[in-house]
Amino acid sequence: EESVNSSASSYVDNSYLFLIGGIIVMLMAAGFMCLEVGLVRSKNAAMQSMKNVVLYAVAGFMFWLVGYNMAYPGSTILGGLLGTTPVIWSGGDLEAMSDAGYAPASDWFFQMVFVATAASIVSGTVAERVKLWPFLIFTAVLTGFIYPVVVSWEWGGGYLDSAWAFSDFAGSTLVHSTGGWAALMGALIIGPRTGKYFGKQVNPMPGSNIPLAGLGTFILWFGWFGFNGASQLAAGTVTDINSVAQIFANTNMGAVGGTLFAMITTAVLYKGKVDATMVFNGALGGLVSITAEPLAPSMGASVLIGGVGGVLAVLTVPILDKFKIDDVVGAIPVHLVCGIWGTIIVAASYGNHIMPVEIDGELQTSYVGQLVGVLLTGVFVSIASVIVWTALKFTIGVRASEEEEMAGMDVSEVGLEAYPDFTNA
Amino acid sequence: EESVNSSASSYVDNSYLFLIGGIIVMLMAAGFMCLEVGLVRSKNAAMQSMKNVVLYAVAGFMFWLVGYNMAYPGSTILGGLLGTTPVIWSGGDLEAMSDAGYAPASDWFFQMVFVATAASIVSGTVAERVKLWPFLIFTAVLTGFIYPVVVSWEWGGGYLDSAWAFSDFAGSTLVHSTGGWAALMGALIIGPRTGKYFGKQVNPMPGSNIPLAGLGTFILWFGWFGFNGASQLAAGTVTDINSVAQIFANTNMGAVGGTLFAMITTAVLYKGKVDATMVFNGALGGLVSITAEPLAPSMGASVLIGGVGGVLAVLTVPILDKFKIDDVVGAIPVHLVCGIWGTIIVAASYGNHIMPVEIDGELQTSYVGQLVGVLLTGVFVSIASVIVWTALKFTIGVRASEEEEMAGMDVSEVGLEAYPDFTNA
Amino acid sequence: EESVNSSASSYVDNSYLFLIGGIIVMLMAAGFMCLEVGLVRSKNAAMQSMKNVVLYAVAGFMFWLVGYNMAYPGSTILGGLLGTTPVIWSGGDLEAMSDAGYAPASDWFFQMVFVATAASIVSGTVAERVKLWPFLIFTAVLTGFIYPVVVSWEWGGGYLDSAWAFSDFAGSTLVHSTGGWAALMGALIIGPRTGKYFGKQVNPMPGSNIPLAGLGTFILWFGWFGFNGASQLAAGTVTDINSVAQIFANTNMGAVGGTLFAMITTAVLYKGKVDATMVFNGALGGLVSITAEPLAPSMGASVLIGGVGGVLAVLTVPILDKFKIDDVVGAIPVHLVCGIWGTIIVAASYGNHIMPVEIDGELQTSYVGQLVGVLLTGVFVSIASVIVWTALKFTIGVRASEEEEMAGMDVSEVGLEAYPDFTNA
Repeated sequence: EESVNSSASSYVDNSYLFLIGGIIVMLMAAGFMCLEVGLVRSKNAAMQSMKNVVLYAVAGFMFWLVGYNMAYPGSTILGGLLGTTPVIWSGGDLEAMSDAGYAPASDWFFQMVFVATAASIVSGTVAERVKLWPFLIFTAVLTGFIYPVVVSWEWGGGYLDSAWAFSDFAGSTLVHSTGGWAALMGALIIGPRTGKYFGKQVNPMPGSNIPLAGLGTFILWFGWFGFNGASQLAAGTVTDINSVAQIFANTNMGAVGGTLFAMITTAVLYKGKVDATMVFNGALGGLVSITAEPLAPSMGASVLIGGVGGVLAVLTVPILDKFKIDDVVGAIPVHLVCGIWGTIIVAASYGNHIMPVEIDGELQTSYVGQLVGVLLTGVFVSIASVIVWTALKFTIGVRASEEEEMAGMDVSEVGLEAYPDFTNA
Repeated sequence: EESVNSSASSYVDNSYLFLIGGIIVMLMAAGFMCLEVGLVRSKNAAMQSMKNVVLYAVAGFMFWLVGYNMAYPGSTILGGLLGTTPVIWSGGDLEAMSDAGYAPASDWFFQMVFVATAASIVSGTVAERVKLWPFLIFTAVLTGFIYPVVVSWEWGGGYLDSAWAFSDFAGSTLVHSTGGWAALMGALIIGPRTGKYFGKQVNPMPGSNIPLAGLGTFILWFGWFGFNGASQLAAGTVTDINSVAQIFANTNMGAVGGTLFAMITTAVLYKGKVDATMVFNGALGGLVSITAEPLAPSMGASVLIGGVGGVLAVLTVPILDKFKIDDVVGAIPVHLVCGIWGTIIVAASYGNHIMPVEIDGELQTSYVGQLVGVLLTGVFVSIASVIVWTALKFTIGVRASEEEEMAGMDVSEVGLEAYPDFTNA
Repeated sequence: EESVNSSASSYVDNSYLFLIGGIIVMLMAAGFMCLEVGLVRSKNAAMQSMKNVVLYAVAGFMFWLVGYNMAYPGSTILGGLLGTTPVIWSGGDLEAMSDAGYAPASDWFFQMVFVATAASIVSGTVAERVKLWPFLIFTAVLTGFIYPVVVSWEWGGGYLDSAWAFSDFAGSTLVHSTGGWAALMGALIIGPRTGKYFGKQVNPMPGSNIPLAGLGTFILWFGWFGFNGASQLAAGTVTDINSVAQIFANTNMGAVGGTLFAMITTAVLYKGKVDATMVFNGALGGLVSITAEPLAPSMGASVLIGGVGGVLAVLTVPILDKFKIDDVVGAIPVHLVCGIWGTIIVAASYGNHIMPVEIDGELQTSYVGQLVGVLLTGVFVSIASVIVWTALKFTIGVRASEEEEMAGMDVSEVGLEAYPDFTNA
């Protein structure tokens, strides 16, 4: 009996982690579709369905064409801020064991489904008034350039990793905040849906299919085990598989905390009634919050980290409304706000350092270092997004006409109705 | 070439079984949600969606806080009937190989998704009139105490295992009947939906979204491969992986039998028409029936075992109605009745012993032993459930007012509608 | 450190590939259900839901009873055209390592879910007017006899494999075209839905639940990673797992190409509007197209192969309508036309041979050889299907009466409505 795994066996085990994790994360695209389609009005449901399929395709195409090699560049310029090898990715020799310890294409696939997640986040916020083609162009830029640059700073071994010991295990900042900032800028530039705000009054525009949103929530929760679990990046040793297992347990507890805390918060706020959509977003907020560090915390700490995320997901909604930022599905509270929270609190798992001090020659993760990562990502993604959204606004236009919006995007952009057999209320 | 797997490789393989099986079973929570939401009326669909998300969170929380260690206790009292170590579970050293042969957290995760299944069963039966908070309190007690005690008797190596050689591979009794008894007691104490029964007349209240119920059925069928397959508890040897594979095949054949037999039964009963919901419940009844022993039977026997389950799932419905027991989704026929059937018939796979005789020093599984397990579980879960439901009834109340019920739980408890854009028939 | 995997470890890894791939493909049954239910009118949605569950059960039953052993026969007659061992399949000794290098039941399970796919294809085309029982009888013949015979010619090592070096990695022809031919014959013999065609006018009958169709598309896309990936048939070596990973990446790119090309095609054809259902079918057409050879092409070539499939999926629809072939969900364009295209283009990956020349003693895959496989499959499946559909037509009848069709199959065959709470438009 050997207690060490053979390298070939480890190689298979590691690759399986990426492949299985990858398809599970791929299914998150379906989860986002269900969630978003359930939360838009029925006159925009076909558009939202279709848009989510197409954005996943665009993300895959761009990440193959340019994104992957920008995220994991051979060399960089500008002090590690920009990769210099934006070429088409290919998998190499099928018969050789890659030095990385896993099948190259399994890694590509796993990274690709992450970029699709970032794009899905934007899709929900700007729903019901953005036009299809400008949205897709934005998606192409986000997934081919903006996201890969951010990823190169950290997972690509660039600036944030080396200079700040920034730590973001599975992407609270790199994936979720990136999507969140891009969504926020989109919401600001595109503007709210017609009729959403009258002076100080907020006109509720309830989602048309709450069960579908619930299903989407569960699919996303399911997908998150791949998202966080496979971000361990290896499963072929005892320590690695123990870690993957613990990540599964902690990820679940983060969502548990988010769900329960959001439920209680909404019950307190709304006189005992529990808003289902807030509970769904609470679960997702908990998941985003635990994503930056799903291994180190205890399970009890995971409940708390997720729980704070759940509360934030609920409380941020009225704040956005106050600023007339119209986020159709609540993606900004969930992905941006909880992404920031989850990233900052990582430092609590690594000795509570305020500044990134060096110990035994190794730079330590710290609150300030985490904040720097959050801010740098925020500034870069926001500026890049503003440039792209604005360029689109003043060229092909980003927003459907008021007439089209009233008729619904299904009629004006898709040419068919989502639910033609049913009478509208 | 070695024909023996290294221990590290086995350890990884075993842990993968729990992790992959676990997330697949986790998705069953979504399956239950779809099934139940599809079978309630539209005015309760948001409530049912939300309740299913929250109950999964509550189950995870309670099983971490107390349930797991009660189910697998360090020591017991009362002749093995009660574990004595109800403390918070934690996963231990990530770098050490656990003696159990798999990552500790992978086992916790796998066990946790089972308890959530038991809770989901109750949710469907008592739908459309139970209030949210008492339901959640019941769920907490069920998942934190009632279910773990039952599990400790068998999978925890307690009384049923040692004294009766009770055999329940993946939980026809421990999971499904437990949920079923709790649901039955709930239905009795809460009472039927207003207007369901007038004297001897049964007023049909058809489900509002049959396709969603169909999707739920398929997701549950999918999840069952994890439920039964990973209950082999190991996959790192030739015998184990052969067994897991055979369990997959037999589990499928059980569902095949349930589907086909239920279809034929309903066609015979209803003049050639095939009630879709009965077919769905037939599939699920077949799955529950094969769950107590999905490895030993031949594939043909699996079809028959599942087939009888499918017939039972159909025939029990009018019997419940006769007693004015209002089970909204048919969970009692599927999980309780088929759970009993599946458990009893296990003895046919182990020599058809009537009594638990000892052969070569080993106690044999028998019809009487199986019956004892079924009855002990039934008595304990029923009494415990009656106590909790009754305590809730006479304190905070378990049931919505008739007005609230008429308006629908969505309006009265959730504060939003499931399908606000559509005109109600 | 060893770079060779032990045989036991490989055996486990290989079996895992079948088991995980198998359940993922199993979920495609749910994907087909969602897609088809979303694309029929609401009055047929319960029937379509139920039919998809039952057909999956029938397929599993028949493939156990006779199909598997006909597809992989011990011996053949008629020059390899017909297997001679149509007996019940069983898995054999659980404790022995099968010579095949994987658990026998894992292979049975994986093959079984493929046959269910072929049956699901037919279900969509003939929806909304076929009666339940004749459809199920056809399904039984298709899955028990027609499909297994076709598979025996190639994957069973029969005539097409040995005489023509026919190459069909995961079944563009064997699974998808087979289903497509059977569907086409069904559509011809059963005839179009009442009111679909008036002279040269085509009366659109839009699908009733586009979001559900979108979800189905994503579930199918997800399932395709199992469909193509696990068709590598082994994962226990470096080369195998590298190949599985590359297949995942290429499969995704095929779908990407199908989605994007279909979107552009429909935008061009319909003045800028992007028909959501065409995009969904474009994705699926891309997937079918890459299925015959998902390993050899580069990722860029995969985009193109899938892209052509996406265009074909869109352009074939009006052609079918011209011939008054009423294919409710577009299964013939997607599975038959793209299946043919994907099969023919395989030769481009193997040296562009026109004829099956022999090189170094090995027969080469060629355009003509691929065409022979396509035609032989087409002729055989079509003739067999015509015989069965016709026999059904003149005995029990295949088609609902006009009255039943107008009322909807839900009322006439299922006895309940899919969405009873909503007012019909």
